[in-house]
Amino acid sequence: MQVSSFQPPPRTLMGPGPADVHPRVTAALARPTIGHLDPAFSAMMEELKGLLRYALRTDNPLTMPVSAPGSAGMETCFVNLVEPGDKVIVCSNGVFGGRMRENVVRCGGEAVVVADDWGRAVDPQKLEDALKAHPDAKLVACVHAETSTGACSDVKTLVELAHRHDCLTIVDAVTALGGSPLEVDAWGIDAVYAGSQKCLSCTPGLAPVSFSERALAKVTSRSTPVQSWFLDLNLVLGYWQGNDGGSSKRSYHHTAPVNALYGLHEALVMLAEEGIEQSWERHHRNHLALRAGLETLGLELVVPEAERLPQLNAVAVPGGVDEAAVRARLLDTYDLEIGAGLGALAGKVWRIGLMGYSSRPENILLCLGALGSVLNDMGHQADTGAALSAAQSMLAR
Amino acid sequence: MQVSSFQPPPRTLMGPGPADVHPRVTAALARPTIGHLDPAFSAMMEELKGLLRYALRTDNPLTMPVSAPGSAGMETCFVNLVEPGDKVIVCSNGVFGGRMRENVVRCGGEAVVVADDWGRAVDPQKLEDALKAHPDAKLVACVHAETSTGACSDVKTLVELAHRHDCLTIVDAVTALGGSPLEVDAWGIDAVYAGSQKCLSCTPGLAPVSFSERALAKVTSRSTPVQSWFLDLNLVLGYWQGNDGGSSKRSYHHTAPVNALYGLHEALVMLAEEGIEQSWERHHRNHLALRAGLETLGLELVVPEAERLPQLNAVAVPGGVDEAAVRARLLDTYDLEIGAGLGALAGKVWRIGLMGYSSRPENILLCLGALGSVLNDMGHQADTGAALSAAQSMLAR
Repeated sequence: MQVSSFQPPPRTLMGPGPADVHPRVTAALARPTIGHLDPAFSAMMEELKGLLRYALRTDNPLTMPVSAPGSAGMETCFVNLVEPGDKVIVCSNGVFGGRMRENVVRCGGEAVVVADDWGRAVDPQKLEDALKAHPDAKLVACVHAETSTGACSDVKTLVELAHRHDCLTIVDAVTALGGSPLEVDAWGIDAVYAGSQKCLSCTPGLAPVSFSERALAKVTSRSTPVQSWFLDLNLVLGYWQGNDGGSSKRSYHHTAPVNALYGLHEALVMLAEEGIEQSWERHHRNHLALRAGLETLGLELVVPEAERLPQLNAVAVPGGVDEAAVRARLLDTYDLEIGAGLGALAGKVWRIGLMGYSSRPENILLCLGALGSVLNDMGHQADTGAALSAAQSMLAR
Repeated sequence: MQVSSFQPPPRTLMGPGPADVHPRVTAALARPTIGHLDPAFSAMMEELKGLLRYALRTDNPLTMPVSAPGSAGMETCFVNLVEPGDKVIVCSNGVFGGRMRENVVRCGGEAVVVADDWGRAVDPQKLEDALKAHPDAKLVACVHAETSTGACSDVKTLVELAHRHDCLTIVDAVTALGGSPLEVDAWGIDAVYAGSQKCLSCTPGLAPVSFSERALAKVTSRSTPVQSWFLDLNLVLGYWQGNDGGSSKRSYHHTAPVNALYGLHEALVMLAEEGIEQSWERHHRNHLALRAGLETLGLELVVPEAERLPQLNAVAVPGGVDEAAVRARLLDTYDLEIGAGLGALAGKVWRIGLMGYSSRPENILLCLGALGSVLNDMGHQADTGAALSAAQSMLAR
C-alpha cells in the first residue's frame, strides 16, 4: 500500500466542536502509554474524578469519563436509567432533544416529547403541563446548551419542576460544561453527561458523566439488566470506583483509553488553574465582542439575547449568500472552520463557536476579518474595519 | 484544587495490552486537531479504511474503526447482528467467550455455549455437535486469540462449520490482529472486531470492525431497530461510508475521536511498511526466543504448543511463589509490566505479552533478566544467564 503519515493542515476551529485544542493537551496525549491497571494510572484516575467534580460543581462519587464520545455519554444515561415501559418526558428544541427521544425508544421506554421551536429555550410552562398530563412519568430529559441552535435552557427551573413531580432528570451538558454556569448539585441534577471537545479545550472522544446518589440507586435496583454491556454502570464502576489511589480495588472491565485520559486530565487541570467561574466569564466576554462585530457586519443572531449561549453563535445567513461557498472559502483561504446548520436550520445559519481554547480575542478578530472579507468579495456589503473596531472596543472594556 | 499535570512513569508494557506504543504513533496523536467533517480529515478516513482492509485481509466496504475500545467493537457486532429471539452459538474458552455470551443475552438473544477448557483452543467437534443439535441457530461467535489464556483457535475451520449450517459468524480478533495470521475474506468471516492497543502498537480506545456483504444485509434488513443508537451501523455508516475522499457524502452522527484516529492511521501505515506477513513472522520469531528463555528459567507455558499464541504467553506461576509480589517488584524495580491471570486462571499464571512494538528483542531480554533476578531474589532458583543465552541464540537464527 502506498500511504504515508497523515499531516493535518493547521486549522482554527470555530464551529460547533471540536474546538481548538490547547497545546498542553496535545502534549499530554503524546506522553508514554502505561497500563490501565498501573497504580500510577489509578492515582491519575482519582485526580481526574476530582477535577470533573470541580468542573461540574458536584460532590457525586459517581463522576467519571465514559470511554467514548458525548453521544455515548447520552446513551450511558438512558440505558442505565430507563427500563422498558418507563415513561420519559423529553424536552426537545433541537437535534439533541431528538436524539434523546431516540434513546428512550431504543431502551423500550415511552417518550413524551415537549417540543419547542429550534433556536428557542425550552418553555418551563410546557414541561409543567406535560408533567401534569403524565403523572406516571419517571424521568425528564433536557438539553442545557443546544449545540444545533445555540439556545440555552433554564435547567435549574426545569429540574425543580421535574422533582416536584417525582421525576429524575437527565441533562445534556455537552456544550455547556466549562462555557456556561452549570451547577449539578445546587440545581439537583440527577444525571448529566458532557463532552471533552467543546469548552474544555480537549480532543473529542470522552464523555464525562455524573450521577446523583438517587440516580445511582435507580441503576443498582433495576429489575432488568442494562441492555448495554459496555455502558452498564454496575460493571463500569468496578473499574472506576477505587478511591484509595491504589489499584487494589479496581477490576478490569474494558481497557481505558489511556492517552485520551491524559489529555482530559490536562484540560481539566488548566480549567482549575483558570477557575471555573473565570472560564464562564471569559466565554461571556468574548461572546459580547464577537456579537458586536457580527452585528456591525450586518449579521443577525438567531437566538433571542436572553436565551443565547456565549459559546455557540447561530448566525442567520443573509439572503442571496451561498452559505456553503462562504464556509469553503473560509477554510481554503484562512484555514478557518465555522459550522453549518443542522436539521431545521440546515442551509439557514452558520454556527460560530467560541468554545474553550477557541474563545480567544485573536480568534474573534480572525473570524470577523475573514468573514467580512469573504462576504465583501462575494458581493455582500460588509464594513469589516468597523466590525473589528466594534469587537476590539468590547474586548477593551 | 491542587492538582498538576500528570507525568506518567516510563514503563515497558509486556502484559495483555495495552502494549508499548511506537513513538511515531504518540507523535501522531499530538498533531493539531481538525474538524471531523473537514475534507482533509475525510481523505484520512478513506486511507484509514484502506489500511484496515489491508491489515484484515479483506475487501469489505464496511471496514472502519468504532470510536470506542474493543469491548464496544464486540458490542457493535452483537447489537447489529442479533435480534430478540435469535439463537447464537458461543464458543467459550476464556473471559472473552463469556463476555460474548453476555452480549447475546443483553440483545434478547438465546445463547448456546460450547465450553472448552481455559487455556485450550475451541474444539471444532463440539461446535459441530452444537450446530447439529441446534439447527435453528443463526450465528456462531468465537474468539480467535483468547487474551485471557493465550490460546489460539482455528477460526478457518470454525467458520467453515458455521457456514455449512447456514450460520453467520462473529470473530473476536482483538489480540489477533497484526500478531497472528488472520484472513477475513479467505476464511469467510462475516463480522470481526479488533482493538487498537495490542499488536498494532497503538493506544487503546478504538475498535476496528469489518462486516461482509452478507452480514451488512442482515443489519439493513432487521425487523427490529438496533438497541444502541451510538453503535447502530445503519447510522454510523452515514458518517463513515463516503468513498470519494471528499466530505460531501458524510453526514454527522457522533464527533469522531480525531486525534485517536491520527494515531491508528499512523500505526497502520507502520504495519503496511513492515508488511502484514512480516509482522506475523516477527511475532512468531520473538515468541520462540521468549519461550526458550522462560523454559530455561524452569517456567512452563500453560497452553499446548500447537494452540499457543505468539503474542500472549500464559506462564504457570511456580509453586511457593507469590505471583502478585513478583509483578509488583518487576514494576517497581524495572518499570516492567506483565499481566496477572483472569477468571479461572487468576493467581495461577502470569500473562506476558509480546504484542506490536512490545515484540522486540530488547523487551525479551529485559523480561527474562528481570524475571530471573526477581525469582532468584525471592528464593526461587533460576539460571538467568542461561535463559538470556537461550533467547539470544533463538534470536540469532
